[in-house]
Amino acid sequence: MTLARQSLNPALVGLDAMNFLNEITMRFPDAISFAPGRPFEPLFSAEASLVAVRSFAAHRSSRPLGVALDALAQYGRTKGIICDLVAEMLRRDEQIDVSDESIIVTVGSQEAGFVALSTLYGRHRSDQILLVADPSYVGVSGAARVLGIEMWPVRSAGGLDLGEVERLCRKALREGQCVRALYVIPDFSNPLGVTMPLPDRTALLELSLQYDFLIIEDNAYGMFAFEGQRLPTLKALDRSQRVIYLGTFSKLIYPGIRVGFAVADQSIDGGSLLADEMAKVKSMTTVNTSPIAQGIVGGVLLDNGCSLAAAIRAKVQHYRRNRDRLLQELRESFATVDGVKWNEPKGGFFLTLEVPFSVDDDALLESASTDGVLWVPMRYFYLGGGGESQMRLSFSGLEEPDIARGVERLAGLLRRKQVARAQRVAAPLSR
Amino acid sequence: MTLARQSLNPALVGLDAMNFLNEITMRFPDAISFAPGRPFEPLFSAEASLVAVRSFAAHRSSRPLGVALDALAQYGRTKGIICDLVAEMLRRDEQIDVSDESIIVTVGSQEAGFVALSTLYGRHRSDQILLVADPSYVGVSGAARVLGIEMWPVRSAGGLDLGEVERLCRKALREGQCVRALYVIPDFSNPLGVTMPLPDRTALLELSLQYDFLIIEDNAYGMFAFEGQRLPTLKALDRSQRVIYLGTFSKLIYPGIRVGFAVADQSIDGGSLLADEMAKVKSMTTVNTSPIAQGIVGGVLLDNGCSLAAAIRAKVQHYRRNRDRLLQELRESFATVDGVKWNEPKGGFFLTLEVPFSVDDDALLESASTDGVLWVPMRYFYLGGGGESQMRLSFSGLEEPDIARGVERLAGLLRRKQVARAQRVAAPLSR
Repeated sequence: MTLARQSLNPALVGLDAMNFLNEITMRFPDAISFAPGRPFEPLFSAEASLVAVRSFAAHRSSRPLGVALDALAQYGRTKGIICDLVAEMLRRDEQIDVSDESIIVTVGSQEAGFVALSTLYGRHRSDQILLVADPSYVGVSGAARVLGIEMWPVRSAGGLDLGEVERLCRKALREGQCVRALYVIPDFSNPLGVTMPLPDRTALLELSLQYDFLIIEDNAYGMFAFEGQRLPTLKALDRSQRVIYLGTFSKLIYPGIRVGFAVADQSIDGGSLLADEMAKVKSMTTVNTSPIAQGIVGGVLLDNGCSLAAAIRAKVQHYRRNRDRLLQELRESFATVDGVKWNEPKGGFFLTLEVPFSVDDDALLESASTDGVLWVPMRYFYLGGGGESQMRLSFSGLEEPDIARGVERLAGLLRRKQVARAQRVAAPLSR
Repeated sequence: MTLARQSLNPALVGLDAMNFLNEITMRFPDAISFAPGRPFEPLFSAEASLVAVRSFAAHRSSRPLGVALDALAQYGRTKGIICDLVAEMLRRDEQIDVSDESIIVTVGSQEAGFVALSTLYGRHRSDQILLVADPSYVGVSGAARVLGIEMWPVRSAGGLDLGEVERLCRKALREGQCVRALYVIPDFSNPLGVTMPLPDRTALLELSLQYDFLIIEDNAYGMFAFEGQRLPTLKALDRSQRVIYLGTFSKLIYPGIRVGFAVADQSIDGGSLLADEMAKVKSMTTVNTSPIAQGIVGGVLLDNGCSLAAAIRAKVQHYRRNRDRLLQELRESFATVDGVKWNEPKGGFFLTLEVPFSVDDDALLESASTDGVLWVPMRYFYLGGGGESQMRLSFSGLEEPDIARGVERLAGLLRRKQVARAQRVAAPLSR
């Protein structure tokens, strides 16, 4: 049978943004790719991690290892079996002090966000608004679309615009709606690579109190800080349980583990925690997070005294070296070129490159086919329009020489675009 | 801060059914439990499975094992990396012949169902009905609640009532609505333990054509057939892509692997398959299913020539022996007791026990605290009311001696209930 596309969830139409990119990536497998926000594979140690699950099983059970592993392979607690270790890690690495009970382990932080949204937003509640920093990681806007949640973008081309947050909160009040939550990545954001300044963090928490909304803080990259003292996360500053914190082991260990978590320490009237309510939803999305995968994470945590800061030092160094190399190559190629600008991220995987031409699907196809270099048009990340002449460059997954060659190829693209523009400008004269 | 419960997704209220059971289970850890539908741990071989991921990595890559495993630990294809092996298993073990492309690997079959529903049903589409066999596995009704999907229960105390299906389809038409899909477990159903007869399977497929709805077939237990020839699944009989098939490795390998899948070979106008549309939603729930977990499943499939029928023989034998023992104990204890009845499941994990008293939370508490035996009140599984004097007994996770002792304890409960009733009846006379 053939199903009519219009009979499906209408949200699907909005989930196509990355399709063109995926298609191009498959068509040009040999291109140097600044596109995916992938961690660097040679530092994964997947083989060793498969041993870590044994340390975890042995630590949790006095029974013979085979029996302990089989017990781990049974259905498990919905909220997870490593909440205590995650809580300890948060104390050590993030100065976040929360109870084990406020933590729910999820299938990546993607599920944490999806479940948080499903729990907070009821169907047929178009009066409940989700504010989303714009541009933003597509995972949360996509989840909101699937769940039919009303989203308002917060124009934030250089990081979250707090004036705009307040304006939208007032607008909601005027219109009989309410801002229920705001989604933001304060540290080394995806896609921009910007960091929220400390005064803005405090001010955002104050706004959340004043206008009674929750903050969904996604901290996928905070541990990958390249210089000086890290800023405290919103959750570390949160004295009033305003923040739902999303964490992930995808970058700390490896993505294929699919283990993340949420901290949801908000009380619900009647006595439970928001994490408990989220567990009810999670039991309907994935039942529980693979206890074998949790055991791998738990083993890695146990092997490292529940602090990953030291364990990921080689990864941080790799990403910093890559950022430095990318900045150096950009300076050498584009420092004197009109209209080319970029930011200097203090951590994470991404930076924004602004160029003097329209960065769209056509430009991406040209870049892939003629120059052999891939990136993501920044406009893919905007809900409300923007980033038309910007690319997101990810420097995380590459080797240094490829970064150098990649920027050379970008320079080739830019030269051709400049020649094309000069010809367009000159054309009327030469006729 | 404290959040008002009423500000949360109203669906949460409906997800509490199992809470009392979980609470009781934790309060009485030493009770013999017929409650959870858990596979039998001593047959898991989790330790060996951790080796299987190496066979898979070596099979898929010619690079050194460590590198191949690290590649596996990267972000992966949303639809999964073992679709070819799953398709081959379906051909060998289920006589289901579908393309690799029609398969999407999910975090257990729970996610498969959740994503199928999210894909098929748009928000604000209360004209699109989901028919659910009643009683039914709580996973699908809970998912429908979270997603705000309008459910109509199909009264099916002895298995799916096809007359009722047709009546509800007509009702929907009369009322300007449409039945979009029907959820059913045809083989050894959870919770009833009944099997849909072959003529009913054919008739249901015909109804789906006549009234233009999809069938979501959940086949968690089909491979655990205890006698004679298995009936073909709905999907094996499906000539018109009417059936979305949900499968799981939770019972075939172990639940902690959290790997399941859907077959969704329906064409969408414009050229894609329903599985591709589901992948868009899945990228918003969990991004992808752990490729390490998929590698474990893939390794087990490769090690067994993509047929698990032989590999699970010991499991099937265990479950059959347990069923036989439970039936024998029930006959010995209750054959001559008025008002006690049970069905004889031909496979799977469950049977239904009918008793001459109200099977509610109070009875469960009494059974746990006084008799030391647990089970699930069948009423938990009904959407439209029913099963008031029935228990679901699961025989899957126990050792035989515990089954015998468990039934002895059930007999104790029954005797006490009979005495209490006799006293209640006698009381007016003795006053």
